Amino acid sequence: LSVCIFISTRKSWAGEGDLKNYVDVEFQPDGKHTRIGVGSKIIEGIREVGIDLQAPCGDRGVCGRCKVVLTEGGGLLNQPTGYELRAVTLSELRDGYRLACQCTASRPGSIVVAIPPESRIGHQRMVVQGLAPKLRPTPMVKKISLNFREGDFKRLRAVKADSELLTSALRRAGCSINSLSLEAMRALPDAMPRSGGSVTVAVWGGREALSVEAGDTSSRLFGFAVDIGTTKLAGYLVDLKSGRVLATSSLPNPQIAYGGDLISRIAYYSQSAENAGRLKSAVVNGVNRLIEDACRSAGVDASEIYDVTAVGNTAMHHIFFGISPKYVALSPFPVAVKSSFNLKAKELGLNVNPAAYLHSLPLIAGFVGADAVADILATEIYRFKGPSLLIDIGTNAEIVVGGREGLTCCSSPAGPAFEGAHIKHGMRASSGAIEAVWIDPDDLSVGYKTVDDVKPRGICGSGIIDAVAQMFKAGVLNRSGGIDRGVKSPRIRVVDGKPEFVVAWGGETEGGVDITITQDDVQEVLLAKAAIYTGVSVTLKRLGLKPRDIRRLYIAGAFGTYIDLTNSLILGIYPDIPFDRVRFVGNTAGSGARMTLLSKQVRVKAERIVDRARYIELAADPLFEKEFTDSIWLPHRDIELFPTVRKLLKGLGRL
Amino acid sequence: LSVCIFISTRKSWAGEGDLKNYVDVEFQPDGKHTRIGVGSKIIEGIREVGIDLQAPCGDRGVCGRCKVVLTEGGGLLNQPTGYELRAVTLSELRDGYRLACQCTASRPGSIVVAIPPESRIGHQRMVVQGLAPKLRPTPMVKKISLNFREGDFKRLRAVKADSELLTSALRRAGCSINSLSLEAMRALPDAMPRSGGSVTVAVWGGREALSVEAGDTSSRLFGFAVDIGTTKLAGYLVDLKSGRVLATSSLPNPQIAYGGDLISRIAYYSQSAENAGRLKSAVVNGVNRLIEDACRSAGVDASEIYDVTAVGNTAMHHIFFGISPKYVALSPFPVAVKSSFNLKAKELGLNVNPAAYLHSLPLIAGFVGADAVADILATEIYRFKGPSLLIDIGTNAEIVVGGREGLTCCSSPAGPAFEGAHIKHGMRASSGAIEAVWIDPDDLSVGYKTVDDVKPRGICGSGIIDAVAQMFKAGVLNRSGGIDRGVKSPRIRVVDGKPEFVVAWGGETEGGVDITITQDDVQEVLLAKAAIYTGVSVTLKRLGLKPRDIRRLYIAGAFGTYIDLTNSLILGIYPDIPFDRVRFVGNTAGSGARMTLLSKQVRVKAERIVDRARYIELAADPLFEKEFTDSIWLPHRDIELFPTVRKLLKGLGRL
Repeated sequence: LSVCIFISTRKSWAGEGDLKNYVDVEFQPDGKHTRIGVGSKIIEGIREVGIDLQAPCGDRGVCGRCKVVLTEGGGLLNQPTGYELRAVTLSELRDGYRLACQCTASRPGSIVVAIPPESRIGHQRMVVQGLAPKLRPTPMVKKISLNFREGDFKRLRAVKADSELLTSALRRAGCSINSLSLEAMRALPDAMPRSGGSVTVAVWGGREALSVEAGDTSSRLFGFAVDIGTTKLAGYLVDLKSGRVLATSSLPNPQIAYGGDLISRIAYYSQSAENAGRLKSAVVNGVNRLIEDACRSAGVDASEIYDVTAVGNTAMHHIFFGISPKYVALSPFPVAVKSSFNLKAKELGLNVNPAAYLHSLPLIAGFVGADAVADILATEIYRFKGPSLLIDIGTNAEIVVGGREGLTCCSSPAGPAFEGAHIKHGMRASSGAIEAVWIDPDDLSVGYKTVDDVKPRGICGSGIIDAVAQMFKAGVLNRSGGIDRGVKSPRIRVVDGKPEFVVAWGGETEGGVDITITQDDVQEVLLAKAAIYTGVSVTLKRLGLKPRDIRRLYIAGAFGTYIDLTNSLILGIYPDIPFDRVRFVGNTAGSGARMTLLSKQVRVKAERIVDRARYIELAADPLFEKEFTDSIWLPHRDIELFPTVRKLLKGLGRL
Repeated sequence: LSVCIFISTRKSWAGEGDLKNYVDVEFQPDGKHTRIGVGSKIIEGIREVGIDLQAPCGDRGVCGRCKVVLTEGGGLLNQPTGYELRAVTLSELRDGYRLACQCTASRPGSIVVAIPPESRIGHQRMVVQGLAPKLRPTPMVKKISLNFREGDFKRLRAVKADSELLTSALRRAGCSINSLSLEAMRALPDAMPRSGGSVTVAVWGGREALSVEAGDTSSRLFGFAVDIGTTKLAGYLVDLKSGRVLATSSLPNPQIAYGGDLISRIAYYSQSAENAGRLKSAVVNGVNRLIEDACRSAGVDASEIYDVTAVGNTAMHHIFFGISPKYVALSPFPVAVKSSFNLKAKELGLNVNPAAYLHSLPLIAGFVGADAVADILATEIYRFKGPSLLIDIGTNAEIVVGGREGLTCCSSPAGPAFEGAHIKHGMRASSGAIEAVWIDPDDLSVGYKTVDDVKPRGICGSGIIDAVAQMFKAGVLNRSGGIDRGVKSPRIRVVDGKPEFVVAWGGETEGGVDITITQDDVQEVLLAKAAIYTGVSVTLKRLGLKPRDIRRLYIAGAFGTYIDLTNSLILGIYPDIPFDRVRFVGNTAGSGARMTLLSKQVRVKAERIVDRARYIELAADPLFEKEFTDSIWLPHRDIELFPTVRKLLKGLGRL
C-alpha cells in the first residue's frame, strides 16, 4: 500500500462554511475544488470543475474507465458497488481506486480525489499529471514567524544589529542560520517592527535566511517544480506546507523553433554564442511563463515562491543552465556536471522570489538525464523486489530496468515520429489532429477521432501509432512494414512511385486534401519503435532477463498516456507481457521534480539512485545492431517473442 | 619592528635584463617601476616616475621631508648619512625609513620603496595611500593548476562528469571543494582539455570553484579593495599572489550630487524608491569606474579580479548594499547588519569576474562603521601597550582610543567644513584651491599656495584650517572666534553687517572677486573642530585618561595628510601632545580594506575588533554638551589644556 497518487492534507479548503449536508471535494493534481451534496456522485463534481473524464458508458458503471483514487476521506463514501468490484482490481481497491460514476457521498466532510492520467480524455493535450508516492512535506525552505515583545525591544535595537536580533530569535526557535541573503538584509530595516511585533523569516536548508517579511506570513510558502522536456515544458505550483499542487501549467518547449530534436538543438547551440543565448533564453522565458500562468490561476504572487526544482534530459539540463551541450553529442560524450546542485534562481533569470534557490536534480549519464532520475523517484521501482521496467517515451526514450537489487538504464533516440514530426501529415496533438484510428480489416473502412472533434487537419503521435498498427492488423502492411500494393482498395495508391494509405479523404478534412500514411511515414514509425524496443531488449539481455520476468511495466511520458496499449503492442514498442502488469504513469519526470521540491529526503534518495544506477551505452553495445534490425519488423522478426500479437494475427487469419 | 609600509615580494619586476650596473626600483603603493644606475639617488627614480615628493631644501638633506621606507633591498644602499640620522628617529630607522635625497644605490639588484603619504606633496588631491602592516598573503581565493595526463583521460571523461574529474583532481591537490559556481560549470566544457593537459581553478575559501580556465593561468590572480568614503571613493588593485598594489584609483563619491553629508543623503534615500536606486547606482557605478581605471593602468582584465573587499561608514555601507539607511539616523538608531558577510559581487552589479565574491568588513555601530574597523586594522593600535588615539577625519570623524587593553570608539559629526562645504568661498581640493595660508602677524599680509599653482578660485579644507588658525595667531580672531573689528587693516571689513577677512584680493583671483573668510565661515570651522575635540575629550574622560597619557596619535583620512600640524593644534582639533607622538597615516580605511583582501587572518581579526570595541553614543553622553561648548573656543575655553598653544600665543604677546 505504499504507492498512492498525489498528496493532500487534512484541512478542508472550504473554510468555515456550513458543512452539514455537503462534502468538500478537492481534485489533485489539478488543485481544483468544489462542493457536492450528500447523495451526489463524485463524477458530478468532476464535471462541475471541468476535468474531462473518460465515461463512454454514460455513468452506468459498465465501461470501468472513470477510475479515480480516493486519497483522503474515502470513509465518507458508499461501499464499492458490484460494478466497481468488477472494474477495479483488489490491489487497486487497496490503493483507494473507485469508479467516479459509482461512488456517492454518504456523509458530510471533506475528501481528496486524485484523477489518474489514464482516466482523463485527451482534451488536455499536454500531459503534466503523473504518478507520485505520498510524501510528508519536508521542504528545504521553512518559514519561521518570530515575535518580539514590546518591553525591551527598543533598547535591544539600540545595541544589537537587526540581523543579530533576528539570528538570536531564530536560534531560540531552534534554527541556527549562518547567513542572510542580500534580499533579507535589504528587507530588514522596513520589516522589523517599530516597537515589538511579528516578523517572518523564510529559511533555506536551516542555514540561510532568504527573506524577512513584516508580520506573520508563515501560512504562505510555495515552490515550483519544472519538467523541461525536449518537446514540452510542464510546471507545478506547490504549497510547501500542505504538499498540494495548487496549479499546473504547460507549454510546448519554445526551443522547438531552433530544432525539433536534441541533436539539431545541440548543433544550433554550438554554432555561435548568439544561438546559445537564444536557446537559453527560449527555455528560461518559457519557464517564466509557466510560473506566471500557474501563479495567476492559483492567486499566488511569484515572489512567494521560495524554492524551485528542475528536471530534464542532459542536453535540456545543460542548455537551461547555460552549459554548452556541445560535447555531450561527441565521443567520449563527456557531461559537464552530473550531480545535483543548488543555485540562486535569479542567476538564471527566473521570476520567483529573488532569494529563492533552484535545485537541479542529478543526471545519470550523457543521455540518461535528471528526467530518468525523476521517473525512478516517482515510480519507486528501486523499492520493489523482482525486476520492473520503466519506459519514458519521448524524443529520447529513457529505459530503466531493475528493482531493489539495482538499476540499469539506457537511452534510445526514438526521434520525434511519435510527436508527429518527420511524418508527411504529422502534427502536434492540437485541435484537429487525428488522435485515434480504427481500420476495419474486412473493407478497410477507416474510423478516426480528432482532438476537439473538429474536421481533421493532420495526424498526431497516438493516431500514427494506431494507424500503422491497424494497417498491419488489416493486412495493408506486411511484417517488414511494406504497403501491400496487391490489396485492392481505393485507400491504397501510389504517388510518385511510392505507395501510401489514405486515412481521411479530402472531402472530410479541414484543408480539403487527403490525409495519408506514406511508406516513408511507416518507416519512420518503425525506426522509432525499433529504437525503443532495442533499448529494452538489450538491457534485459544484459541482465539475463526475459520479458515475462518483468513484474511491472511503467509507461511514462506525455505520449504514454494516450497511446493505445494493444496497438502499441502490435507495433512491438514494448515486450509482450500481460496487460495487467502495465501501468501508464503519465509525466513522472514532473512528479519526481515535485517530490524533490517537497522533500529533503527525496533529494538524498536521488543521489543514491544515481550512485546505484548502471548505464548502458546502447549504440556501443555489440548486441545493438542485430537487435535493432530484428526490431524493425512488425512486431519483431521473431514473432514468438510476441505471443499475444501472434494469437491476434492468427485469429485474423493473417498468420 | 612590526609596522612597516606596504607589501612586496622578492621577485624583480624587471625580468631577465642586464642588472649589472642597475638597481630596479619599485614604488609602493603606486605600483610604479623604474631602473636607476648604481651611484644614483633614490629621489632621482621617484622624479622619473612622476611621484611628487616633498623636497623643499633641494636635495641637501636638511629639511628631512623626503622620507621614504625601504621595504626591500635596503642592503643595496649606502649607510645612512649624518643628515638622515638627524631627520629620522631611531624607531623610524629600524622600520626602514631613509631620506630619498640621501640614499644612493651602491650595488645592483632590486629594491622596493614605499612612499608614505606625509612625504608627498599635495598634487595628488585624493589621498588613497595609507599605512599598513606587512602581511603574508593568505587570500580567500587561490588558483590551483591541475594537469590531466593524456593516458586515461579520454576513458575517464566517458565515465565521469567533468565536474567530478575536477573535484577529485583538486582533492588530490589538497583542496576539497563542495560546489562549483554557475560560471565554473558553464566554463567546464570548453576549458577541459581535449585529451590531457592543464586547467586552472580559482577556489574560494577552499570550498567553491569560482572559475575554470583552460591552461595554466595560476600566475594571474587579482583582488580589488574599495574604500567608500562619504566624499571620495578609493580603489586598490592588488596582486593576490605577491600582495603588491598594482594600481590605485580614486574619484569623488558621485553621491555628492544628492547630498554632501550623510544626513542629507539618508533623507534623500528615504524619500522614494527611485531616489534610493539613484544613490545606490551612483556608488556602484563609481566603484565600477575605479575598477576600470585601475585595471587599465595595470594591464589587468577586470574578469581576473576574483575577490573584492569594501569598507565604508554605516550609511555608505548600507546604501552600497541597497539596505535602507533610514533608521540609522532615527532613535534608537538601529543598524540592519553589523557583522561581516560575503556576497557574489555580481549581485551588486560590480564588473569583476562574475563568480567573484565581495566581502563587507564588519561595522561597530550606527556611526562607527567598517572604515573605523579598517583604521584599527591598519594602525594595529590593538597591539600596543598603553593608550593610543586614532582620529579619522572626514565628514564624520571616527575616534578610537585604546590599545591591548581594549578599544573605545565614538563618532562625531564634524560636518563638511573641512571639505570646503558650507564655507562662502569653499571648494574641493581641485585646481586653483587655496590649500595653504600664512598671515604675517605684523602687517596681516597674506601668503598662500594653490593647487597646481594657478590663480586662486576658492579655498579648500587645509587652506581653511590654516586661514582660521593664522587669523587667530595674528590677532584677527579673539578666543571665542569673533573677528576683531578694532584691528586696523584693509583686509578686515564688514559686509551686510557681518565682518570678514580678505585672503586674496579680486585682482589676484581667477574669478576677479575677493576670496574671504567670513564670520560665518569661522563659526563653521569652530563647530567642526569642536565636534572632533569633544569626541576625543569625552572618550578620554570616560576612560580616565589625560591627553599626555596618549602614547601615539594617528591622524587618518584624506584631510589628515595635508593639514598643518601646528595650525590644527592652534585650532584645537586634537589634544596638545608632543608632535613626535603624532603620525599621519593617510587613508587607513583603504589600507584595512586592502589587508582584508589579502589575508583571511585579518578577516578574523576584524571580527575580534568589533567584539572587543566599546561604543560611546556621543550625543547621549552627559559630558557632551559642556565639553562641546568649551571646545568652540580657540583653542579651548581652558587654555591650560593647550600648553603648546599657550606658549606660542605668549611669545606673540597675545596672552
